[in-house]
Formats: sequence, C-alpha cells, structure tokens
Amino acid sequence: MISYVLDLVGLAVSAISGALAAIHAKLDLFGVIVIAALTAIGGGTLRDLLLNRHPIFWIVDPRPLLLITLVALLTAIFARMRPVPRDALVVADALALALFAMSGAQLAEGAGHNALVVILMGTMTGVGGGVIRDVLTARIPLILRQDIYATAAIAGIGLYLAAPSLGMARPWAFALGMSLIVAVRLSAIRWKLQLPAF
Amino acid sequence: MISYVLDLVGLAVSAISGALAAIHAKLDLFGVIVIAALTAIGGGTLRDLLLNRHPIFWIVDPRPLLLITLVALLTAIFARMRPVPRDALVVADALALALFAMSGAQLAEGAGHNALVVILMGTMTGVGGGVIRDVLTARIPLILRQDIYATAAIAGIGLYLAAPSLGMARPWAFALGMSLIVAVRLSAIRWKLQLPAF
Amino acid sequence: MISYVLDLVGLAVSAISGALAAIHAKLDLFGVIVIAALTAIGGGTLRDLLLNRHPIFWIVDPRPLLLITLVALLTAIFARMRPVPRDALVVADALALALFAMSGAQLAEGAGHNALVVILMGTMTGVGGGVIRDVLTARIPLILRQDIYATAAIAGIGLYLAAPSLGMARPWAFALGMSLIVAVRLSAIRWKLQLPAF
Repeated sequence: MISYVLDLVGLAVSAISGALAAIHAKLDLFGVIVIAALTAIGGGTLRDLLLNRHPIFWIVDPRPLLLITLVALLTAIFARMRPVPRDALVVADALALALFAMSGAQLAEGAGHNALVVILMGTMTGVGGGVIRDVLTARIPLILRQDIYATAAIAGIGLYLAAPSLGMARPWAFALGMSLIVAVRLSAIRWKLQLPAF
Repeated sequence: MISYVLDLVGLAVSAISGALAAIHAKLDLFGVIVIAALTAIGGGTLRDLLLNRHPIFWIVDPRPLLLITLVALLTAIFARMRPVPRDALVVADALALALFAMSGAQLAEGAGHNALVVILMGTMTGVGGGVIRDVLTARIPLILRQDIYATAAIAGIGLYLAAPSLGMARPWAFALGMSLIVAVRLSAIRWKLQLPAF
Repeated sequence: MISYVLDLVGLAVSAISGALAAIHAKLDLFGVIVIAALTAIGGGTLRDLLLNRHPIFWIVDPRPLLLITLVALLTAIFARMRPVPRDALVVADALALALFAMSGAQLAEGAGHNALVVILMGTMTGVGGGVIRDVLTARIPLILRQDIYATAAIAGIGLYLAAPSLGMARPWAFALGMSLIVAVRLSAIRWKLQLPAF
C-alpha cells in the first residue's frame, strides 16, 4: 500500500519533469501529455517487457495514466501563469529517481534475479523514462552526460542489496538505499560532481 | 477478411510515407526499405509487445513484409521519375492513420481492456510507426508538433467506444469512428488547425 | 560451446565499437559503459522480445554483462593512452556483424520461422545494437547511410539458407555465410561500395 502510494508520487513527479521538458521544446498540448506519460511510465514499461511481466502495470490499472494526464495538464496551465520554482523541481526529480530505482530493484529481486540484473533493472526503471524523453526531443540523453544521475541509482541499489548481509532488516535497507540516492544526486547538483569525461 | 484487406492497405500507404521520408533524408535504397517497413509495422509491433500478443502479426504471416518491400521499391523507382502528387499522399496518410488506429483499438477492446487502454493502444498503433521513422531520421517526431494528428485518432476511437451505448451497431460505430479520424485530420490540414502550443 | 564462445567474442567486439563511439561523443565513463552495453546486447534483446524468447539471454547468464563492462572500462583506459588502430577495429566490427547476424538467423531458423523472418531477425541481431548506439548519440543511424552493412548480413544469411538445398552440410553453410558477410563488408569498406542513394 505504502509502496503503491510511493509509486504514484514517483509517476506524478516524473510526469511534471517530462511536461516541463516538452514545454521547453515548444511542443503543443498533446505533445506535452505524451512526453509526460512516456517519461513517467517509460522505465517501468521497458523493465516489464524485459522481465516478461505481463500485463504491464498501467494496462490493468487505469490510475497511473489518469494521474499522469491530470498532472501534465496542470503543469501546462501552471507553466503559463508563472515560472516553475527550480529548487522544488530538482528535489522532486531526485526523489522520483530514488523511488523508481528502488521499486524496480525490489521487483527484480523479488523475481529471484541475480544482483547484476537487479541493479540494471532498478537503474533502468529510474532513468529509462528520461532517456526516452530526451530521444523524442532529439537531444543526446541527459543521463549520458550527467553520470552522477545513474551512478546515484547504482550506489543506492548496491547499498540496499549489501545491507541485509550486515544484519540490517529489509525495510531499513530499502529506506537507506533510497536516502543514499537522493543524497548523492543532490550533492552532485550542489557541488557539480562528475565522473571523468572524455 | 475485409479487416485484413484494410490492414494491408494501411501497411502499403504507411510504407509509401516512410519511403518518401527516407528518400527526402537522402538515405540509400536499403535505408528506404527499412524506414518504410518500420513506419508500416512499428506501431502494431509496439502494441503487440505491450499487450503480450505473440506471435507478432508479421512473424507468422509473410505477406505484410513482402508487400512493404515491394511498395518501398516501387516508391523509390517512381520518386526518381517524377514528383509525388502531394494531395494523394495526404489523403492516403489520413486513411492509414484511421485504419491503424481503429484496428488497434478494436483489437485492444476485443482483449477486454479498459477504455483508456483501448484509446492508447489504438492511437499508438496509428502513430507509432511515424514516431519511429522520425526518431531514426533524427527529427523531433512530427506527431509531437502536429497534435491534430493523434488528437484525430483519439476522437475517432472515443466515438467508436461511445456509439454502441447510444444504440448504434458495432460495424457502424467502427465506420463512423474511422470517418471522423479522416475528416478531422483532413480538416486540420486544410484549415491549419492546431492545439495551443508553448 | 563453440557457438557460446563466438557469441562472447561478438559481444566483446561490439562493446569496443560502442565504447569508442561514446568516447568520440565525449560522454563520461558511465555513458561509455551504457552505450557499450546497448551496442552489444541491443540487437539480441530486440530479437528476443519480438520472438517472445524469455528469459532474455543476459538476464539468466551474468557473464555477458560482466564481460561488456570490463571491455568498456579497458577500452576507455586504452583510448586515453594511445589512438586506436583503425584497421583492427574495422576487421573486428565486420566479424561481430557476421557472428551476430548468423547466430540470430540460426536461432530464428531453429524456432521454425519462415525464411523472411530468419533473414530479418539475423539482420536485426547484427545491426540493432549499432542503430540504438547512433540514436542515443543523436545521429542518423550509420546503418541507414552505409547500406552495404546490412546488405552484407542479408547476403550471408541468404547463402546460409540456400546452401543446404544444394547438398551442403549445415555447419559448412554456417561458416560459408559468415565468411561471405565478412568478405562483403570488408570489400565494401576497401572499395567504398554503395547502393544507389537519393
């Protein structure tokens, strides 16, 4: 139940980030809704396809798509009225990354996959939507330039997988992994941290 | 049977539109065939993957791929000889959108999905190939800039879903929805209608 | 066993080509690993999704992903030290195309699909990763401009399918098809062969 609410929060925040990117690219109202939806459900959909989990989560439950459409419309209306507070958005985006990455990882772990696949699926759930958003607006995906983004997800999921072997209860490991992702991501933005580039 | 023939017509028209886009992007003969094929089968393939319908339609039946290859070759030869009549193409493209959108919607409805998923799958079947075409030729997908395209599909499918509850027989609802898509799309082109952009 | 080793060789060589493209696009270390991985496993993953083969090959066997990560890291380190010998890369890339195309074709054939699907799946396995690599680095896919690339794969697979009906044993047909792909590809590079472009 809590996990379902957290998922909806993640969907809403991702939809806002997608809608803002679409508005920035001067798309029309329909484009804004589509990009918002793909940003929000893209990573999870790819994960479900690769893990052969059917039906895909938004096909049986209409709430994710309704929520995303509503959020995209509100974002479009709001963006016409006043500039978006940037700090709120950055925190929200880090939270969505953490929520999606950890829930994707937990899901792959529950299906009995090895640690490498758990990390990969969690990271993909976290960053997949943003990659689709960037490809559709014809940019080199942000994620491939801002590495501390995916690296934050990898670190958090790794901690979540390692913590139980140190005697930590699973829910605490989950909260700890999620906090690490948010902390690493916000630190990377605050102090402009980057991996070596070429 | 009629529905199968309509599908082949849709595939052929989409293949022409894909081939012309590839020729415009100065791709070579192979690129023209590939883009034509992806434009024609892209939306339906994505729909089948998401709905877990296997085998995918062009894997068991060789006719779609043979037809597309033939049409792409003919388009390439024809385009070298004389300019393509633009009006014929616009009408044909609107027809392909209507055919794909309605057949995708009908298919999702037949599988028992809710109205939101039916609309989404129909729209995706209608516009998916064009999005793939535009991504592969490195443009912002046309569909995200010309909203009355997908909006036409959404309107037609919505009418198709609503009509039976008003006492209309299903085949008539199907024909009505399809006509609405063609009419909306051609009106949008004729009078340059657009949704509010940002 | 030999086929498994050949697959790993193909993965490694593709990963090198992906890593070099990412380094060229000035991505950071994480981006290099991701692009290397998508280039190496992209074609095979798409093939498995379309043919509904689950679990996907790299989900049950951790070796492909570990190998790719290692190769991408080594490529990144090596590329900082000295320029990459271009000839070695070209030969390796042709070899990877041949390995992936033939193994993808063999797999589709083993599943009982018709010749058109066998050719399509083999070609997709061979070139799919490169297309994903180019889309993510925001270029028109190389494959759509350098047609002798995919055309080489189609020719080799066609030969592999035709040879047994001429009384040739299957392993020899496999080796022959693979050799043809490498030969056509290297000839095309050496003498700058191209299909007619528009």
